[in-house]
Amino acid sequence: VQKATRQHTKEQNRILVLRTIFDRQNMSRAEIARITHLTRTTVSDIVSELIKEGLVREIGLGSSIGGKSPILLSLIDDSRCILSLDLAYNRFSGAVVNLRGQIKEYTTIPINDTNGEEALKVAYEILDQLIKSSKQTLVGIGIGAPGLINTQNGYIINAVNLDWQNLPLGSILTERYHLPVYVLNDCQAAAMGELIYGMQDQTVDNLIVIRAGHGIGAGIIINRKLFQGDNSGAGEIGHVVYMREGGLPCRCGNFGCLETLASVRAVLQRAQLMSETTFSEKSTPITLENLEQAFFAGDNAIRQIVLEAGRYLGMAVANLVGAYNIHHIIFTGEMTRFGEPWLDAIRETMGQYALPKLVQDTIVQIGRLGDKDVMLGASALMASSYQLLFTKN
Amino acid sequence: VQKATRQHTKEQNRILVLRTIFDRQNMSRAEIARITHLTRTTVSDIVSELIKEGLVREIGLGSSIGGKSPILLSLIDDSRCILSLDLAYNRFSGAVVNLRGQIKEYTTIPINDTNGEEALKVAYEILDQLIKSSKQTLVGIGIGAPGLINTQNGYIINAVNLDWQNLPLGSILTERYHLPVYVLNDCQAAAMGELIYGMQDQTVDNLIVIRAGHGIGAGIIINRKLFQGDNSGAGEIGHVVYMREGGLPCRCGNFGCLETLASVRAVLQRAQLMSETTFSEKSTPITLENLEQAFFAGDNAIRQIVLEAGRYLGMAVANLVGAYNIHHIIFTGEMTRFGEPWLDAIRETMGQYALPKLVQDTIVQIGRLGDKDVMLGASALMASSYQLLFTKN
Repeated sequence: VQKATRQHTKEQNRILVLRTIFDRQNMSRAEIARITHLTRTTVSDIVSELIKEGLVREIGLGSSIGGKSPILLSLIDDSRCILSLDLAYNRFSGAVVNLRGQIKEYTTIPINDTNGEEALKVAYEILDQLIKSSKQTLVGIGIGAPGLINTQNGYIINAVNLDWQNLPLGSILTERYHLPVYVLNDCQAAAMGELIYGMQDQTVDNLIVIRAGHGIGAGIIINRKLFQGDNSGAGEIGHVVYMREGGLPCRCGNFGCLETLASVRAVLQRAQLMSETTFSEKSTPITLENLEQAFFAGDNAIRQIVLEAGRYLGMAVANLVGAYNIHHIIFTGEMTRFGEPWLDAIRETMGQYALPKLVQDTIVQIGRLGDKDVMLGASALMASSYQLLFTKN
Repeated sequence: VQKATRQHTKEQNRILVLRTIFDRQNMSRAEIARITHLTRTTVSDIVSELIKEGLVREIGLGSSIGGKSPILLSLIDDSRCILSLDLAYNRFSGAVVNLRGQIKEYTTIPINDTNGEEALKVAYEILDQLIKSSKQTLVGIGIGAPGLINTQNGYIINAVNLDWQNLPLGSILTERYHLPVYVLNDCQAAAMGELIYGMQDQTVDNLIVIRAGHGIGAGIIINRKLFQGDNSGAGEIGHVVYMREGGLPCRCGNFGCLETLASVRAVLQRAQLMSETTFSEKSTPITLENLEQAFFAGDNAIRQIVLEAGRYLGMAVANLVGAYNIHHIIFTGEMTRFGEPWLDAIRETMGQYALPKLVQDTIVQIGRLGDKDVMLGASALMASSYQLLFTKN
């Protein structure tokens, strides 16, 4: 419980007006006053400020209901933009994203075997390039990266692929670019992205997004906010063990983690093993594209491997259903290319492993942002924090 | 974002003052003003009201720091009390609980084979008796019951033991007793109890309480509030399947749920089976007391059974660690009588099944409320909702 002050109220009202214009386009001042329960004078004052700051503009006249036709207002979608980075295991991508999650600029650089200081330089390169080519007002940097990340202080606690440990990425970038920086786990970023830009139903408050790609992890949304747990590790389901006896070694040091059973790496590894066993010689490396083709061509062995991966994900989902009882569960990441058959394996196993009363209301789907989930999510966290985004400069 | 009003501010300030007096005893008006950043006049006005309403009293003079000795204020712990019910599988208990979680009256009735309408009558009997004997001002009824419960509308969705389905217990009791009623799942109640009255460290915001008794379930606390998920089922981990092949049938209709592997029922069933196999005849029913004795006497077979139950709980904990990354995990319920050896089996298995980086900060302990966990929890939810408790009448 905090003491309410006049200044606090003023800021609250500003955010309230902005949010109203943001959520519903083409609003008159009178409509805003009606919806927000603020006085017309207060609304007019705030709107004047917002127009002066270039955040809102008048876009014409609405239909009259008796008197003068009202002037309609709209948010200027490009008035503020966010620099967004997706530090994936095989390539770094960057984008300039506007207030509606539209990508205005985009660039990507492969980073095979690049790590440590060198990887950091690739991130600089992308940001420098985007800043140079962007004409928009940039208000912050959002980053989605693999591994354990402390969002509060912007530290990468541990990102194995990049060989980053206790790297203060947030403050390094703030110092270099003089912008606020949010650093997020990639799965948690994907969750924010799907929540803000992917979900058709914007009344959904709670959401679980499971990212099944090179690694596996989940992002948890509670009351439209990212829930990170006590040390930013909420949703780290990829390293829960699902096959203790006979499980394969995982990069985390353990055996039989979900990642060794259901990730892109896991299915590629199994397909490779099978192919080598079948032809009793070293075969050329199998790619995910090969696997996808074989899967949809009806190759039985490949279908087994992929659907088995789905079944392990179904067990993980069953555990999340029991833990969270959150109805909306969305999958993103490269495994989603196996589509509905794979999803059905997940759903079926979830049904077998969790309480029927909880399962019946649970909807498991594939996300709508494709491979831009992390990118858009990294900017979405900032966009959802209206206070930061719309602070007077 | 809500519009801030003057009335809202006034109520906020009242709660703020009450909370300050509640959290730290023996405070002067000046100290309250300093801590809350409210003016002395505002504090004085509010305190006068609270004294008139019998919530706060003056308890003497504090030490002076120069001028007049300040008058110290204290909350009157018994000024408001809550009726609390624990509807356990074998007995219903009721208590009158004060603002500090002290039990002022207590009564319990066994309910073996009592269910449906009859069970409801036992609840009435307990409440009638407590109301009759209590001298306190009763401000609400808190209930902890097994099964799926919708706390929002007070419905018991499904309580198998009691044969209650879609029972509007909240409104039935409100109508009968003219008091606000909170109905909670027993494990969720236990979580509130341990949070408010059990934890020594009151700065802990997030907490998982796992109740392992006749059934198994968890209560999840996020930001000091009960998190229930989309349909009150968050923490329903007892019916996640951990042994699909060869699992025993569960009352939920499934096979190999955690409850069939790690609950009191599960260990009793296994001990009974073993004893029948060993002596190849029907033996007398084994009780939990028998089991406890044998366990601490070092009976190897019984230790195996109990520690095996602990290991399955450890797997469940590993999943919760991955899902929530909440550092404080507390066990309550009758299985806790197996103490540290059982807890060590849980901890060890958690360590094997979850990410080491997350495990290292996770503390697994036994709760401090004993068999009063649900009872105190049912009242704690109400006590933590200051608005309700301290509303002007």
